[in-house]
Amino acid sequence: MTDDTSRTAPPVLEFWFEFASNYSYLSAMRIDAAAARRGVAVRWRPFLLGPIFQSFGWPTSPFALQKEKGAWVWKDMVRQCAKYGLPWRRPSVFPRAATLPMKVAAAHAGAAWIGAYCRRFMHKNFVLDEDIDSEAQVVAVLEGLGLDAPAVLAQALADPGRRCLREATEQARTRGIFGAPTFFVGDEMFWGNDRLDDALDFAAPST
Amino acid sequence: MTDDTSRTAPPVLEFWFEFASNYSYLSAMRIDAAAARRGVAVRWRPFLLGPIFQSFGWPTSPFALQKEKGAWVWKDMVRQCAKYGLPWRRPSVFPRAATLPMKVAAAHAGAAWIGAYCRRFMHKNFVLDEDIDSEAQVVAVLEGLGLDAPAVLAQALADPGRRCLREATEQARTRGIFGAPTFFVGDEMFWGNDRLDDALDFAAPST
Repeated sequence: MTDDTSRTAPPVLEFWFEFASNYSYLSAMRIDAAAARRGVAVRWRPFLLGPIFQSFGWPTSPFALQKEKGAWVWKDMVRQCAKYGLPWRRPSVFPRAATLPMKVAAAHAGAAWIGAYCRRFMHKNFVLDEDIDSEAQVVAVLEGLGLDAPAVLAQALADPGRRCLREATEQARTRGIFGAPTFFVGDEMFWGNDRLDDALDFAAPST
Repeated sequence: MTDDTSRTAPPVLEFWFEFASNYSYLSAMRIDAAAARRGVAVRWRPFLLGPIFQSFGWPTSPFALQKEKGAWVWKDMVRQCAKYGLPWRRPSVFPRAATLPMKVAAAHAGAAWIGAYCRRFMHKNFVLDEDIDSEAQVVAVLEGLGLDAPAVLAQALADPGRRCLREATEQARTRGIFGAPTFFVGDEMFWGNDRLDDALDFAAPST
């Protein structure tokens, strides 16, 4: 038996991330190219890590809470960025607030420009060390992409767009997400930038 | 200027691990072959994770404490073992006590048979699902390696051998180790089985 739909639709990789997450930065910068090479479609899924961590009783990132791991993470990031050929500067504020740009990302997660939008915010946080949780930053990025910034922003702040980020975060919790980045292929979960290649292998085993 | 010693001595990779640690299992089974391919010498460094976790205020493994991460880890292990071609059975007890075999490992960490000894205990824990913290298990493994079990055991239980594991664990804490496996090349630390290849690249950049 053949099924035309399943033969032609590419496998889908869900990419759950947030702008404050340094390991999400590594994945955000390379996922589109890596997935394209495998014929896999990427579905960007912004969510907030803070409420997830709080549900575990953690007031902030485990990298900030546990100083031994935190100290290592910043050395690891230098090496990982060198390995992937990515620029890097350790943010002077961590984890950095990003609710407004994340709200816009969640409300427009299916837009053609979502990848470019997210990469620009990752670059601002992890290369330029800029505060990003402001309307000025969102407008600058949207305009830089040639978009109608007021219209995009208005959609993200009115119903139903304004509910997207909260709903995505609740869905992340329900699906057992405990960190970022997290990838899903169907119900199969892969945690961490180190598992991006495994997730792509799982999505497209024959390539 | 040339230096005969530095030209001829191979780079050294320290491998800090413990028998209860499932990700240490992945590294223990492949590290000797992977390092040999790069001309890197492996220094096996057994230590106890329990006192490290307790120093963070954790009564047990974070995989046992945090159920979302714990649930994922066992799925990840199935996939990682498939990727590396390693057998795997989830231990019915986790983390499994291993003080006696670890004491013997620490007291004889420089022995020629240390790798083989450790791999056999890893196999017992993560493939055969056997309890391993007994003299009978230690004797069985030592005899299986053709060693004089009573002599090896006696050395590990008398001074100075009996102090090795405690001293190694204290040294692990001092060096900022927060999990296992952890690799060191000189003072450079690499955490996790996922960083074994990075550590080898760092130890032998030209190969």
